Amino acid sequence: MLAIGDELLSGRTKDRNIGHLADIMTAIGVDLKEVRIVPDEEDRIVEALNALRGAHDYVFTSGGIGPTHDDITADAVAKAFGVPCEHDEKALQLLAANYAGRGIEFTESRKRMARMPRGSTHIDNPISVAPGFAIGNVYVMAGVPSIFQAMLDNVVPTLRTGQKLLSRTVTCPFGEGVIGAPLGAIQEAHPDTIIGSYPRYEEGKFSTELVVRGRDEEKLAAATAAVEAMVERLKAQQAA
Amino acid sequence: MLAIGDELLSGRTKDRNIGHLADIMTAIGVDLKEVRIVPDEEDRIVEALNALRGAHDYVFTSGGIGPTHDDITADAVAKAFGVPCEHDEKALQLLAANYAGRGIEFTESRKRMARMPRGSTHIDNPISVAPGFAIGNVYVMAGVPSIFQAMLDNVVPTLRTGQKLLSRTVTCPFGEGVIGAPLGAIQEAHPDTIIGSYPRYEEGKFSTELVVRGRDEEKLAAATAAVEAMVERLKAQQAA
Repeated sequence: MLAIGDELLSGRTKDRNIGHLADIMTAIGVDLKEVRIVPDEEDRIVEALNALRGAHDYVFTSGGIGPTHDDITADAVAKAFGVPCEHDEKALQLLAANYAGRGIEFTESRKRMARMPRGSTHIDNPISVAPGFAIGNVYVMAGVPSIFQAMLDNVVPTLRTGQKLLSRTVTCPFGEGVIGAPLGAIQEAHPDTIIGSYPRYEEGKFSTELVVRGRDEEKLAAATAAVEAMVERLKAQQAA
Repeated sequence: MLAIGDELLSGRTKDRNIGHLADIMTAIGVDLKEVRIVPDEEDRIVEALNALRGAHDYVFTSGGIGPTHDDITADAVAKAFGVPCEHDEKALQLLAANYAGRGIEFTESRKRMARMPRGSTHIDNPISVAPGFAIGNVYVMAGVPSIFQAMLDNVVPTLRTGQKLLSRTVTCPFGEGVIGAPLGAIQEAHPDTIIGSYPRYEEGKFSTELVVRGRDEEKLAAATAAVEAMVERLKAQQAA
């Protein structure tokens, strides 16, 4: 994923799209492998996009497709693909009809939202009409979370998705210092699962959520049982 | 910044450190220019870290310095710098004294938290003792937000910071379609400021926060006045 926008790097806006994309990709069995956040600077967007689209099956972008002067994502994506960025007829018609229906002038600024790299296909925007677009393996979506999410809902059915990634969570009242070694042994014994431990530190006390992930239900169940047995064993030791 | 952890990419954990670092850097006049999120995979950490530390003055990392088998950040940073990763005597003593005082066994897993690249200096951890570390222009900190924040508080006074970046926010009841063109003209007329517009879409209505940033108080005031005048002019047109 490539999140685009000065506001994310200044702290003005706290990103909410990365976590949402991560949740959705996990749910459909696509591994999110890398995220970059770059400012609204053409060279930086082009460089990051070319690195990501070369390295991964899909790239999802957020931000920079509105009507203001700092919305340069469409131009940068076009440059990355080496194609012209131009007004799209279908997008112009959609926007013109929408503004006409609301009695609002279709200004030059608003027409910017119909610009996209030549050869793009639309990603429908049920919220505010102005479409995102897909070109090659890149999906360009809005930065406003509700619109990003709605656009992503339209993209997901078009992806080649793997089997759903299954996961089980085991809540563990011990910190990582207690469970580190036995958990490492369990991971080694169950190589077809991915075991993560996520520490919580609240009210002066450590605990962990142990998450076992995998694509095979039986292997997942076996690894989860081993983790649960470890937690019970540690509790018994503590109580003894 | 480099945020490290499978849990960030699976959606299990929603990152809170990027936004905090962005806020702090803005407050002290350091421009955050790029963020990457990578999984707990050595090659990916090494590659991203070398790219970032070559391109930027400072790199801040979060995550992967706990005691479990998937905490591989110290090893990856050592590999990126081409130095050995080894137990640090001072860190071992700190941790040993802490665990002894609490009557807790100092296990091999816990000793992992004293490992760091040769030549590192400590970043104190007032919350859970196990230190972060700095090597070259890279600051390696914990992923748990409260610990990340405490470590960052210890790092900030050691940085060469620019003048504080000043900012003014103008709340604007119009969407970006209305303000795009006049705002672009104001940006062109005030090149020493950075003018951003941050759309909000709530309850079916667009509005924007217009943020004017700059290092020079007078130039900032002039650009802000121009933005405020634009908003008032648009309000008057609306009312007419």
